Amino acid sequence: MKKAAIITIGSELLEGLILNKNAQFLCQELKNLGYRVVKVSTVGDDLISISEEVKTLLLKVDLLILTGGLGPTQDDLTRDAVAKVLNRSLKLNEELLSKIKEKIKKYHSEIPQNIERQALVIDGAEVLDNPVGSAPGQLLTVDGKIVILLPGPPRELIPMFNALKDRLRTPDALYQVVLKYYSIPEAVLEDLLKDILYSQNIVEVATMADHVEGVRLRLTTHMKNKEYLDEMVKKILDKTGEHLYGVNDEKMEEVVVRLLKDRKKTLAVAESCTGGMLSSLVVNVPGASEVFAGGVVAYSNDLKKHILGVREDTLRKHGAVSKECVQEMTEGLKKLTGADICVSISGIAGPSGGTPEKPVGTVFIDIFEHEHITMRYNFTGDRNTIRTRSAMMALENLRKYLKGREKV
Amino acid sequence: MKKAAIITIGSELLEGLILNKNAQFLCQELKNLGYRVVKVSTVGDDLISISEEVKTLLLKVDLLILTGGLGPTQDDLTRDAVAKVLNRSLKLNEELLSKIKEKIKKYHSEIPQNIERQALVIDGAEVLDNPVGSAPGQLLTVDGKIVILLPGPPRELIPMFNALKDRLRTPDALYQVVLKYYSIPEAVLEDLLKDILYSQNIVEVATMADHVEGVRLRLTTHMKNKEYLDEMVKKILDKTGEHLYGVNDEKMEEVVVRLLKDRKKTLAVAESCTGGMLSSLVVNVPGASEVFAGGVVAYSNDLKKHILGVREDTLRKHGAVSKECVQEMTEGLKKLTGADICVSISGIAGPSGGTPEKPVGTVFIDIFEHEHITMRYNFTGDRNTIRTRSAMMALENLRKYLKGREKV
Repeated sequence: MKKAAIITIGSELLEGLILNKNAQFLCQELKNLGYRVVKVSTVGDDLISISEEVKTLLLKVDLLILTGGLGPTQDDLTRDAVAKVLNRSLKLNEELLSKIKEKIKKYHSEIPQNIERQALVIDGAEVLDNPVGSAPGQLLTVDGKIVILLPGPPRELIPMFNALKDRLRTPDALYQVVLKYYSIPEAVLEDLLKDILYSQNIVEVATMADHVEGVRLRLTTHMKNKEYLDEMVKKILDKTGEHLYGVNDEKMEEVVVRLLKDRKKTLAVAESCTGGMLSSLVVNVPGASEVFAGGVVAYSNDLKKHILGVREDTLRKHGAVSKECVQEMTEGLKKLTGADICVSISGIAGPSGGTPEKPVGTVFIDIFEHEHITMRYNFTGDRNTIRTRSAMMALENLRKYLKGREKV
Repeated sequence: MKKAAIITIGSELLEGLILNKNAQFLCQELKNLGYRVVKVSTVGDDLISISEEVKTLLLKVDLLILTGGLGPTQDDLTRDAVAKVLNRSLKLNEELLSKIKEKIKKYHSEIPQNIERQALVIDGAEVLDNPVGSAPGQLLTVDGKIVILLPGPPRELIPMFNALKDRLRTPDALYQVVLKYYSIPEAVLEDLLKDILYSQNIVEVATMADHVEGVRLRLTTHMKNKEYLDEMVKKILDKTGEHLYGVNDEKMEEVVVRLLKDRKKTLAVAESCTGGMLSSLVVNVPGASEVFAGGVVAYSNDLKKHILGVREDTLRKHGAVSKECVQEMTEGLKKLTGADICVSISGIAGPSGGTPEKPVGTVFIDIFEHEHITMRYNFTGDRNTIRTRSAMMALENLRKYLKGREKV
């Protein structure tokens, strides 16, 4: 397997001003292209630090990617450092300089004097076009090893790296499928699937879990084993398909909006503790307006009564965080909006407001079309985590309800 | 100035499974404690890679922090690597082992056999208590240099590092103030303040801008110049105080909720394109229920009419994205909720729905207590960015309105 390393350059990284998202992006991509990334280094904008790291890593890897330090200022030393280590000259590329000047003219009235530095090309290097910014990249081959210089801003780096992927792919390139679940705990999922997942050593299995995206099962194998992995996914879905909400980049809210469109159903929501978060997730899907009417953020009991028609008696007897209350919320919402399906959430997000019977994290969710489907949860975490879990679980319940309609 | 370096260890970083947030956290903190961070390295869980990096960096820095690789498995090699490089032995600390076992018993019925590895202490090292997880940290002094081993999970690392801050602080420790603005562009702010900011070289100035937190002006100086910086902040606020929404970690929504409490005013919101995002931001502030009644997500025109009483005629003549519509939305909301102050937002978040007169990004925001304060914006960005800018700008307008009440 080929080895790769990454050097990310810039004082803004060493001072903690920005998060090193480029490193994660490149590590993921290089893995899928069939490389083993052995090291990621971050060094400052100085010639010695960059040179030392390039020299050390070139002895160890087949592919070295440097990011950052390609701007026009005297601080931008990546070109100089690589040229020095390889004992090659830097030459001004006049054609490139004209192109860079053209680009800058579009946005700025004046061209900085030092812009020439961006047109300095290491002897023997191929110039890599930057479709977004002014700093071009460079690619060199050194004794069969590849060295690539890319600019630091992710919106420039990502498309430039993507354009190189076909050339960098190795015979060890990987095939990957991510399966996403929300309402099944990681341990239960692993137990259900252990015969499929751990009786083989062709597919690498990784699980990740958080309260926003739920449990993700990442399956990775060599491209040549694609069929084996696809077959494995089928077996996994036979056992857990009803719990699966999405594959790879699909988001829960996108799946729900698509299902609503397929079923030609409209949706309205009434939220208490989530306070608009559920609604906001749905609205962020382009085209949500076809199926989403809107809703009520009934945060105070007054609003629950006056807008949604929850009865004073219900609030007094059962409280706002109760099965009775969420059911009256959806009933009131249906009268108010005429939406086909109404969803309501009421709970205690904390930090205060908990009682022994209903501790912080107690949340009721109701789905009402022709009859009520009401669930009670006890979520853990801080205020924002409990609210996020509540909104995501409401979407998951709605997804399952809409899927169930297929079978009706 | 003392130098520091960080080695973050783990294949989950090199495979891009997780983002290296520890590196950013430590870089920021070390800078403020008076260190110059010269390098951050990420290496895998293997003895040779870790040892080589420790050996190289110990020659260059005064403080070396290693994170990760302190778990109980055979893959967790940080202890072994550091011991090897320093030519020191690893000894089982029986007292520590009992403590670790006690901790694990609380969460798991079985104690893993390999847990002993977590109680192996490098000869001469001080054990650092881990208040969250089972892996203790270690601190060594080597020829006047400090080496610290910390666990990888941020929720364990952060409190453990914070507990060490007083001991690590150098005479070069820094004093920092971050000033936060939303409704003033970065370039305008810099121009307004250029005489104050750039006529001196005692305080380092950095500006950062994004659509969630707005424009942040970060002022940093040596602790001994604290008074100078505080004086500078006063001068800055003389010129820009009305635009400032917060200092350091303060969030816009926290400031708005605090102002509402101070003024004893209740709030309700009516949202179209933001679809609950504004409401959700307010609700995430603990104690928001004292001042926040709730609101209506009037995403469809039907809901604007039926719940908020926006007139059919208004929608036909001016459209839903208009001054007239947002004003009728707040008026209807006030009747419905009785809240003191009502805020409404209606706009075109895209990607479709734009017209030549009202392109994507056109947003109207109204604030209504006794009279209307209506603003029109043309935001740029994708759907989520436009929605976030709209919600944040509504909070900013509300903040300014509430501040203005002081003077009334």
